[in-house]
Amino acid sequence: MDDIVKKVVSGDVRAVARLIRDIDDGIPEVRDILKKLYPHTGKAYVIGITGAPGVGKSTLVDQMVAHLREQGKTVGVLAVDPTSPFSGGAILGDRVRMQRHSMDNGVFIRSMATRGHFGGLTQSTRSAIDVLDAMGKDYILVETVGVGQDEVDVVKSAHTTVIVVIPGMGDDIQAIKAGILEAGDIFVINKAEREGADKTLADLRLMLDMDQKKYEGGRWKPPILKTEAVFDRGVVELLEEIEKHRKYLEDTYGTLVPRRSKDKVREELYDMVKARLIEEVMGRLTETGEFDKAVEDIVAGKTDPYTACDRLVLPKIEPHQDSTA
Amino acid sequence: MDDIVKKVVSGDVRAVARLIRDIDDGIPEVRDILKKLYPHTGKAYVIGITGAPGVGKSTLVDQMVAHLREQGKTVGVLAVDPTSPFSGGAILGDRVRMQRHSMDNGVFIRSMATRGHFGGLTQSTRSAIDVLDAMGKDYILVETVGVGQDEVDVVKSAHTTVIVVIPGMGDDIQAIKAGILEAGDIFVINKAEREGADKTLADLRLMLDMDQKKYEGGRWKPPILKTEAVFDRGVVELLEEIEKHRKYLEDTYGTLVPRRSKDKVREELYDMVKARLIEEVMGRLTETGEFDKAVEDIVAGKTDPYTACDRLVLPKIEPHQDSTA
Repeated sequence: MDDIVKKVVSGDVRAVARLIRDIDDGIPEVRDILKKLYPHTGKAYVIGITGAPGVGKSTLVDQMVAHLREQGKTVGVLAVDPTSPFSGGAILGDRVRMQRHSMDNGVFIRSMATRGHFGGLTQSTRSAIDVLDAMGKDYILVETVGVGQDEVDVVKSAHTTVIVVIPGMGDDIQAIKAGILEAGDIFVINKAEREGADKTLADLRLMLDMDQKKYEGGRWKPPILKTEAVFDRGVVELLEEIEKHRKYLEDTYGTLVPRRSKDKVREELYDMVKARLIEEVMGRLTETGEFDKAVEDIVAGKTDPYTACDRLVLPKIEPHQDSTA
Repeated sequence: MDDIVKKVVSGDVRAVARLIRDIDDGIPEVRDILKKLYPHTGKAYVIGITGAPGVGKSTLVDQMVAHLREQGKTVGVLAVDPTSPFSGGAILGDRVRMQRHSMDNGVFIRSMATRGHFGGLTQSTRSAIDVLDAMGKDYILVETVGVGQDEVDVVKSAHTTVIVVIPGMGDDIQAIKAGILEAGDIFVINKAEREGADKTLADLRLMLDMDQKKYEGGRWKPPILKTEAVFDRGVVELLEEIEKHRKYLEDTYGTLVPRRSKDKVREELYDMVKARLIEEVMGRLTETGEFDKAVEDIVAGKTDPYTACDRLVLPKIEPHQDSTA
């Protein structure tokens, strides 16, 4: 095990790829490796990129990688697709995407396709970020497909979150739920050569400004940029805005940018505890057949789900210590 | 408590409204009432109606209620909006919506606005459905806002799920994720007087037919209907299709339509056990300050989240009985 830890920290691509696959598959032994890797994490800058399918996120990420490499930075890319039913598809995707950077040791690209066996998608992603971080990458780009709650949760692991839209999504922008708009540190209108880019920009600006109070007292006000990723237009400017946001975070929270801030740690630990509880207790209830028995009793009308739930859960956990005792 | 149970079963509107509010607010005492109500449930037919904001779901539901009432059926309506930040908004919505049916004792309309404190949104909805069922309503219409995973989970509690779209959503239909299309038993193109209705119908048909294997061996093939709910066009036909689906379910699964089928009970019990575990154990970890201490230790670099999680969770649950011992 120490061998794997050593290999990951030294940047061994095979060891890293296997570890991320094990996280994706929910192998419990991975936890012990992650414990040992943890002291080696906290150095990478994590950028989340999210947006609906077809807005050109992959092309944008590809160009960002190229420019970061020109600056001499090393880059890890995680593409997270919870909707993809085939992990094979994601791997094929990796191969296609890696072509341009495949000979470059400074870039590591990997997809995660499953629904996050390892304690939820967000936790799987966090753990995979930890691995790329421990591997020594300067920047980690996390790309997610879609704009739902899952994706927002995933990008919450990022220092800077970029939300990508395209022109003419008028009604759709309305449909972007409040929680998702709030998650954006930078907005990008990609394919900006298309008709309607200025209207989309105005619409977005309006929606963001409606929330003006948020930006009082020097708080970060999300910029909206136009890009044409295919032609490499606007990408350098996007990276500059990301650096500005990084600077803002450092000025606000101190030099060590706090992906490990109290709030984020609290959220992460809560998710982990939840996932672990379910895994451990449900594992036992399934093994002993108690869960199946309860299902049958409910179907047969011998009990109700509320009573069955009490009988399953309460004996499995430590009795409540009454604090008034 | 027995008094509340009696009141709900006798159809007391105030008692029902209060109970649903208590479910929505996550009051733990509600569980004991739900246990006693359970034997009175299982008679109502539950219809889920989902679709993006603005497709006219509320109008459609309103017309469905009117027609069901003409048939002499009693109806309960639950409007579930997990994105609404103000429960006040939902209540105002109820008032507006109730106007037409406000003098009719055969109709009960209620909104749930919170994020589901009572063990998740899906579980809150299931429990509220149980209450309307115990109250004696023949039909329960569950309307959800949006087409995300949350909404699909909610409509999973229904016997028949209706997915509503409007013409010209071409690209958006593509964006309806696979899981959501699969959840639909009946598709409705509302506002069918608008341009593009036939194209939307053809697109939908194509997407559904791509999954042809699903319909082999006499399985239900989701019909696609056009409605103009504002003009009450197509609504009777929709109710007829729902009855056909009900008949299909009865022919397939027996006379007692199985909202209480083994699969649904398994899913419901699993969700309940999960929610209960988290509530009980996290409650203790918060009360004793152990959780906060762990967060601080991680932030201070004294431990890592993986180790902290082990130390929090494992002592709180029954030791694992090794089956080889």
